[in-house]
Amino acid sequence: MKDYTIDITLSEARKEKPVAEQLQFGKTFTDHMFIMDYTEGKGWHDPRIVPYQPLILDPAAMVFHYGQSVFEGLKAYLTKDEAILLFRPDKNMERLNRSNDRLCIPRIDEEFAIEALKQLISVDRDWIPTAEGTSLYIRPFVISTEPFLGVAPSSRYQFIIILSPVGSYYKEGIHPVKIAVESEFVRAVLGGTGTAKTGGNYAASLKAQQVSNLKGYSQVLWLDGVERKYIEEVGSMNIFFKINGEVITPSLNGSILEGVTRNSIISLLKHWDIPIVERRISIDEVYEAYKEGVLEEAFGTGTAAVISPIGELFMKEEKLIINNSQTGELSKKLYDTLTGIQTGKDIDSFGWVVKVN
Amino acid sequence: MKDYTIDITLSEARKEKPVAEQLQFGKTFTDHMFIMDYTEGKGWHDPRIVPYQPLILDPAAMVFHYGQSVFEGLKAYLTKDEAILLFRPDKNMERLNRSNDRLCIPRIDEEFAIEALKQLISVDRDWIPTAEGTSLYIRPFVISTEPFLGVAPSSRYQFIIILSPVGSYYKEGIHPVKIAVESEFVRAVLGGTGTAKTGGNYAASLKAQQVSNLKGYSQVLWLDGVERKYIEEVGSMNIFFKINGEVITPSLNGSILEGVTRNSIISLLKHWDIPIVERRISIDEVYEAYKEGVLEEAFGTGTAAVISPIGELFMKEEKLIINNSQTGELSKKLYDTLTGIQTGKDIDSFGWVVKVN
Repeated sequence: MKDYTIDITLSEARKEKPVAEQLQFGKTFTDHMFIMDYTEGKGWHDPRIVPYQPLILDPAAMVFHYGQSVFEGLKAYLTKDEAILLFRPDKNMERLNRSNDRLCIPRIDEEFAIEALKQLISVDRDWIPTAEGTSLYIRPFVISTEPFLGVAPSSRYQFIIILSPVGSYYKEGIHPVKIAVESEFVRAVLGGTGTAKTGGNYAASLKAQQVSNLKGYSQVLWLDGVERKYIEEVGSMNIFFKINGEVITPSLNGSILEGVTRNSIISLLKHWDIPIVERRISIDEVYEAYKEGVLEEAFGTGTAAVISPIGELFMKEEKLIINNSQTGELSKKLYDTLTGIQTGKDIDSFGWVVKVN
Repeated sequence: MKDYTIDITLSEARKEKPVAEQLQFGKTFTDHMFIMDYTEGKGWHDPRIVPYQPLILDPAAMVFHYGQSVFEGLKAYLTKDEAILLFRPDKNMERLNRSNDRLCIPRIDEEFAIEALKQLISVDRDWIPTAEGTSLYIRPFVISTEPFLGVAPSSRYQFIIILSPVGSYYKEGIHPVKIAVESEFVRAVLGGTGTAKTGGNYAASLKAQQVSNLKGYSQVLWLDGVERKYIEEVGSMNIFFKINGEVITPSLNGSILEGVTRNSIISLLKHWDIPIVERRISIDEVYEAYKEGVLEEAFGTGTAAVISPIGELFMKEEKLIINNSQTGELSKKLYDTLTGIQTGKDIDSFGWVVKVN
């Protein structure tokens, strides 16, 4: 790890903390933030924790024009004995650098980035909510800040971490959602930015989501951009199907995101000796499994929701009702186990949980 | 046109204007900028011209995270008799709204947007450079500003116009560039955002450009993301080939940008009775035409360079030298005619040029 010293300026005016029951996702932010600058020739410099404050940027700053940005998302939990737990932050920082590589953004020292977020969380530790299902959402991100309208990598960046206390993703506990297979829009294609956590992927997804929302579906199921038949992701989550006792998830084909939750679920399933395969899976295969009565469960996986069971899948002008629109047994077991490990209630035999001192 | 009144606050401290010979592209900005806000329920409001100044945004502003942004680019020229000319600004504003639709950004009144940029240019008219090949580059853009980490369209936006005096794109007049066919990375795919002028497309293109620069090529030739053989664009420009007396440009297939320069060139060629077809064209067809000695010219088209002749095309491990690495006769004629109309030196028989009073 590089030898940086983080300068800390504490906020004089502390904000009022929200009531646990009123917590929403990503709308409230804590008293402090972490910032570090990059200047060509000088590298990453001036790491600092400062009061949460607006960014002041030239209107020509490249992030506003050419979308050169990346981000990550992870959560911190407070255990009953006041320990702060992070879930696999090394995986997020590894991915941040993979995203940086794809977007021509200079790499960040991963160990130092984890140290920075630990220090920031320590400063704002009173903001970690403790009610069932709540957590402190951590958003590290990098933006390009050089004021220049040429299409080229920026010579200046800011690496920023902000924190947001968030409520339970499911207000009434885990429950199945309705998903529509997307036939018009495409999220990403091999050779594009699908494997990177960059703004453009999310901007591209908004239209399809808006159209499906109007039809009563909460997310879309993305198909590949080439043959338009292989399953990629669901909304902004990875996806798993349980068919005839076997769990199947699309392989990392160069256009889907390598989710940390996805990776953890594969490990858990292997640990439990439940058959799990990563391979190409077509929408026709899912449809046939449904017709044969062997499509047992389907669920999305991601940091925000952890496990999001799919109760209804709309495709080929037909509504496929999965597991009687109920949360499946495996979905529930995965959700309980993962959140149990993340919150420190259950034993972590994988070495996934990292304590903040 | 909607009845808005633009509030004008003039800058008290005027910046020094750059020397014409030292003008670069997109690095210097004028004394003023235009801003207008959008708030859900209220619509677009408070149009104003203010001193050029930094944007102050919450670090959770959506543009930093989910790339919901669009932009346009056009130029203003000062004629010898002090008239200010714009080139087809209606086309840019039409496209801005098509980009807005794709990115779930609320539409902007096109006529009013043109009125706003005319007023801004009038305020900063002293900034329009007059030396041969120089112009005032106009950058309208929209960013999403709501501080919210949910993946959804923002409820707040800013529509901003900034102005930049720019030098000649070619320091020594129009000259051919070297281009490499891109075989690893993909710019866009049908169903994605390729037809929209949004940041994510440009962010996605940086890596391929960086790799090709290292090999001595200035831009890449993008192929389609599905079959990886049909020609899409060159760098951030549209592309034309002259083969055996006929001009061919890729048709608007849903993944390439509908360039204003592209459209104008098609009109000019038709006007001159030069055969021009918009259709799918494969890289193999270009290669075969080269081998048969009938690939006469190739050029990129866009607002920044107007016409960018291609002197060398790298593909299939071979360097194809086009027109002896010289600017072709047609490329030159198109460049001279278009810039002649844009700068008011030549008669505009198409009704393309719009005067700023």
